[in-house]
Amino acid sequence: MNGKEQWFAGKRVLVTGGLGFIGSALAHRLVALDAKVLLIDSLIAEYGGNLVNVRGIEDRVRINISDMRDVHSLRFLVRDMDLIFNLAGQTSHLDSMREPIADLEINCAAQLSLLETLRHNNPAAKVVFASTRQIYGKPDYLPVDEKHLLRPTDVNGINKMAGEWYHILYNNVYKLRATALRLTNTYGPRMRVKDARQTFLGIWIRLALEGQPFEVWGGDQLRDFSYVDDAVAALLAAAVEPLTDGRAFNLSGDSVVSLRQVADMLVAASGGRYVVREFPPERKAIDIGDYYADDQAFRSLTGWRPKVPLAEGLRRALDYYREHLPAYL
Amino acid sequence: MNGKEQWFAGKRVLVTGGLGFIGSALAHRLVALDAKVLLIDSLIAEYGGNLVNVRGIEDRVRINISDMRDVHSLRFLVRDMDLIFNLAGQTSHLDSMREPIADLEINCAAQLSLLETLRHNNPAAKVVFASTRQIYGKPDYLPVDEKHLLRPTDVNGINKMAGEWYHILYNNVYKLRATALRLTNTYGPRMRVKDARQTFLGIWIRLALEGQPFEVWGGDQLRDFSYVDDAVAALLAAAVEPLTDGRAFNLSGDSVVSLRQVADMLVAASGGRYVVREFPPERKAIDIGDYYADDQAFRSLTGWRPKVPLAEGLRRALDYYREHLPAYL
Repeated sequence: MNGKEQWFAGKRVLVTGGLGFIGSALAHRLVALDAKVLLIDSLIAEYGGNLVNVRGIEDRVRINISDMRDVHSLRFLVRDMDLIFNLAGQTSHLDSMREPIADLEINCAAQLSLLETLRHNNPAAKVVFASTRQIYGKPDYLPVDEKHLLRPTDVNGINKMAGEWYHILYNNVYKLRATALRLTNTYGPRMRVKDARQTFLGIWIRLALEGQPFEVWGGDQLRDFSYVDDAVAALLAAAVEPLTDGRAFNLSGDSVVSLRQVADMLVAASGGRYVVREFPPERKAIDIGDYYADDQAFRSLTGWRPKVPLAEGLRRALDYYREHLPAYL
Repeated sequence: MNGKEQWFAGKRVLVTGGLGFIGSALAHRLVALDAKVLLIDSLIAEYGGNLVNVRGIEDRVRINISDMRDVHSLRFLVRDMDLIFNLAGQTSHLDSMREPIADLEINCAAQLSLLETLRHNNPAAKVVFASTRQIYGKPDYLPVDEKHLLRPTDVNGINKMAGEWYHILYNNVYKLRATALRLTNTYGPRMRVKDARQTFLGIWIRLALEGQPFEVWGGDQLRDFSYVDDAVAALLAAAVEPLTDGRAFNLSGDSVVSLRQVADMLVAASGGRYVVREFPPERKAIDIGDYYADDQAFRSLTGWRPKVPLAEGLRRALDYYREHLPAYL
């Protein structure tokens, strides 16, 4: 535990979406740092929340099953918190196109309600918001830095863009303190592997372990990947560094790879196999081509950097699901 | 009536916010062009709608009093429309900070509902959306072109940004046709002059005519102003030019002036007077400094350009309110 991490000991910390993939990884880390942790999650079946994700720390966290759209519960739950990791969200791009109003309620309206509640009931709290690289849309140039225009290509991207900006605005106007991190493709233990709702990598891992071929759409697209422990470390770094207040930062991975390279790494580690397919038309309409981020701004302000190479992260994820796959199906 | 304007004859045209300042000016023009016009307006007291605005054309338009948030009515009303000018919105920046959720319901959720309705029930319609320069926030450089980052400084700006992007997205993904115009400070007959809710220029005009001093906050800020007939001409030009589909364009005025210069022009035309005041703190937090736009992209695609100089536009506005002021108080 380094000096900055000691800050979390005894702090009251709320994680929205706390039973989800990243939220639960964060919860495990916060428990290790002796924080007093409250997790909120709605456990909507199609999203990433799963009680299995907090196995081993059930007795060291408080769990409150509730929806971010439930303004009154939220008002009660945020009182007295020192810090809020605001990770709850609808994250499926296809679901956002099928049910755009539900996406708006969760990713826009509930975020604005949370901030209004904090402004009136707990203005001293710091908020770290999980934003997404999806808001950039199809890049004009690579790597994408924070000066790049935001041109979201799906309803989810538009709503996450608005959700991010509410945080920045409330920081600037009301002196709440808020930071947004634009996460890139995050992967690792506890990710949703049941289907491709949140990320293709989840279903790849599942199929590789089940001995089924997984599908690579296209294959030449370049991407960066963030191992979940690295993303968690970034969330913690944002929480303790006041210079991040009022700003939105990219996160990137340790390297840039093509989807085919990722597939090859996964095959090497799992013994699975894949087939390359043409892009389905309904995905093509919202595809963004190559994407990878420049995250120098966040690195230089906080000293954070990704530590887990992709091949190693994939091995850890496979190890986890070799043991726990049935609990995620 | 030029060739492009002949297109409107006989067309079924819906104007949301049709009893408001710009919507009603557009309605007058559309009636002159022999369009079949339906106006929707909720006549919310604090907004810009006013039945006086359609005096003289009441018998040549259909008026439907309803709110954009009323999804079911909207679904019925948009059927069979050839063209939709989507001008309904909450436009007060201060109101958006006082009632952020109401602003979100109108400027985000209702816009998304409209587009969903069109997608399912009238995908052949073209939509022209009234966006705003407010979404740029404080400029990095001047004049501001469409490559400038969007960094809204109030809830209204964030929600209008999302509302604009829903339109662009539905154009790109679902082949609805939609264009967004980022209007700058629009002024002229039928603008709200009761208070400063929508623009400072309204209350200036009222006070100048009432013989009261009006307040200029700061005074050195540079702005561009769009006379309402020019804004209407731009909306029509966007409607008939297919090359504008799927894009958002700046509009600018005929010149760039300081607020003090505008005040001087208004005094010269009205015989009124003004006092210069320090910026009130609650406005300072969301002030953007100088702003004026580069609108070459829209000009070169459509041939549109502003035709009414600011001094002339102010005279026309004053003439209108000398006759009609009581109906706007």
